[in-house]
Amino acid sequence: MTEWHSYEPASGHRLPHDPVNAIVAPRPIGWVSSLSADGVPNLAPYSFFNLFNYRPPLIGFSSMGWKDSVANIEATGEFVWNLVTRELGEAMNATAANVAADVDEFALAGIETLASLHVKPPRVAASRAQFECKVTQIVRLETKEGTELDQWLVLGEAVAIHLDAALLEDGIYQTARAEPILRGGGPADYFAITEESLFKMRRPG
Amino acid sequence: MTEWHSYEPASGHRLPHDPVNAIVAPRPIGWVSSLSADGVPNLAPYSFFNLFNYRPPLIGFSSMGWKDSVANIEATGEFVWNLVTRELGEAMNATAANVAADVDEFALAGIETLASLHVKPPRVAASRAQFECKVTQIVRLETKEGTELDQWLVLGEAVAIHLDAALLEDGIYQTARAEPILRGGGPADYFAITEESLFKMRRPG
Repeated sequence: MTEWHSYEPASGHRLPHDPVNAIVAPRPIGWVSSLSADGVPNLAPYSFFNLFNYRPPLIGFSSMGWKDSVANIEATGEFVWNLVTRELGEAMNATAANVAADVDEFALAGIETLASLHVKPPRVAASRAQFECKVTQIVRLETKEGTELDQWLVLGEAVAIHLDAALLEDGIYQTARAEPILRGGGPADYFAITEESLFKMRRPG
Repeated sequence: MTEWHSYEPASGHRLPHDPVNAIVAPRPIGWVSSLSADGVPNLAPYSFFNLFNYRPPLIGFSSMGWKDSVANIEATGEFVWNLVTRELGEAMNATAANVAADVDEFALAGIETLASLHVKPPRVAASRAQFECKVTQIVRLETKEGTELDQWLVLGEAVAIHLDAALLEDGIYQTARAEPILRGGGPADYFAITEESLFKMRRPG
């Protein structure tokens, strides 16, 4: 018999750490580049991130507070998503520091850039896949009572996609070959995806 | 030197398969139970799913088309998210079949249920964590030109959380111990998360 630990979040949890981001986990990482209206580059990782539509490709991330990335994207309408792989883990983590809006995280973390083709924010040169995006919607999230939270879901459409051709096998993108990393719960938990993680289940007729 | 494969999604890709859901991958699975207004249970997996806020816990999934889950949640205001672990993979996959709205996927896939405490849709008994949710927002997604898509982002607040107490170690939820599975690209790709996948990186100052 399963022994259930149950609680109502509105009444608080009775655990040493809030478990929700360890339960809905691991999660893909939204490593987002943007430019302020004044042209200051910003690069920050978001762990509430995902794909939301195929055609056109829509991706989005949820920001706790009106952070620099959100302000930049609202002002300029553009951002780039950069895939985080195992070898980029430390660089990504360095861009998670809370720094002033006029600090360039690319310079701070020593990250080389590549120019984008359709948007102004640069790409992370060492990232093996990038989506150049135009913002589509910025949704302020609400509680079940309709109370507005200081939590912002930023959605964008990929207008250009770049991927390292070495990740293609017979033209099929090999997810595990890039060795993406994912975010877990707790202050320091990440998960590495490798070829060994892959298994197949065919969808029923 | 990286050899880049670049394309503009609006002009179509030149690959055998659209790579976007293999690039933004792997993704946590939203295995969602709901009830129709008439009380017919529905259970379906969504791979465009994530956590979007901590307090209150908000989760959401994006549905391609106004599917039964979306119609049910719009009508009743309630759903349950069930964690998919390795041992539940085949059962989850069985609920991905396209069946008529009056088909009970719990019965179809032989899935036992547990009653929820705060909402009417049942929980998957063998799932090791479940969130009972009240809908907060249903957002119709748009292109960058503002054209409305038949793609619906359903967001909900967890009013009750249940987890298998065996997944706690000193009160800390152990993500890998549950052996969650994630969705990759392609028709059949899944990724298994194990203790070996975990590594630590502490966030800078």
